[in-house]
Amino acid sequence: MESPQKQEKYLSRAIDLAIRNVDNGGGPFGALIVTADGREFEGLNRVTATNDPTAHAEVTAIRAACAGIENFDLTGATLYTSCEPCPMCLASALWARVDSVVFAADRHDAAAVGFDDAEFYEFFDQPVAERSMPVVQYTPVGTDAPTPTAPFEQWTNLESRIEY
Amino acid sequence: MESPQKQEKYLSRAIDLAIRNVDNGGGPFGALIVTADGREFEGLNRVTATNDPTAHAEVTAIRAACAGIENFDLTGATLYTSCEPCPMCLASALWARVDSVVFAADRHDAAAVGFDDAEFYEFFDQPVAERSMPVVQYTPVGTDAPTPTAPFEQWTNLESRIEY
Repeated sequence: MESPQKQEKYLSRAIDLAIRNVDNGGGPFGALIVTADGREFEGLNRVTATNDPTAHAEVTAIRAACAGIENFDLTGATLYTSCEPCPMCLASALWARVDSVVFAADRHDAAAVGFDDAEFYEFFDQPVAERSMPVVQYTPVGTDAPTPTAPFEQWTNLESRIEY
Repeated sequence: MESPQKQEKYLSRAIDLAIRNVDNGGGPFGALIVTADGREFEGLNRVTATNDPTAHAEVTAIRAACAGIENFDLTGATLYTSCEPCPMCLASALWARVDSVVFAADRHDAAAVGFDDAEFYEFFDQPVAERSMPVVQYTPVGTDAPTPTAPFEQWTNLESRIEY
């Protein structure tokens, strides 16, 4: 974890990004990735601006950082974000191998202005049969249909595969 | 939910996309979004190919569909995917307002070839203090520091805001 002075600086910058993003047609969210070697990459919420529901500030910061260091692995990085990350952003940070996340406003502050992530957190706690969005397994039965594990067999047979 | 014939067709196509993606330098995952009006958008896993840890097949399909229909809301759409979605992909589908998700292989099939999402699912079940990636709140204290809720105040004062 960074020193309190650096946390102060980086988190303030994420909040400032969020403020400016509102004036620029984006949502009120900003983020900053600081890599293990101190490089900084900004992220902004561009959901409505770019018609991309996955373009949360944290996700755009992760994408920018990975593009910048030319690696899909951000081990040693810290993610600073103006607001508590939703489950999508947390899982994105896990996949990116981010070390830790520091946030300013929390989910209740966000809900008070109409950004309510509560159902997203609850989704993962609900019994599968009661979920708001059904997620069901199906196995193709046609004689020409590929088997569900065919892609994995193709993968394990590929010598040049890059594991992650 | 679509008819079994259509599920068969669309899910088989997602699996075929996954198989072909392996030959094209991608991970063994493919997905297909079918919108409420029947338009189809493909998604491929391009994590290592594009250095984007968020480029799972489901996420790239959602992005492609939203770009294609020029809207961040996929209400009425079904997401077909060659493998059970991870928490990032599920949360992305929730944000995109996808109606339902149909998958072929499951998380255990994926783990058997080295793609183990178990820690991601467990992350959301763990007590905050025990999480593998710390997620902590901090409030800047400097006299010049922005307040955590300043972006939200900017947002609620903006008449042209697009809520989502």
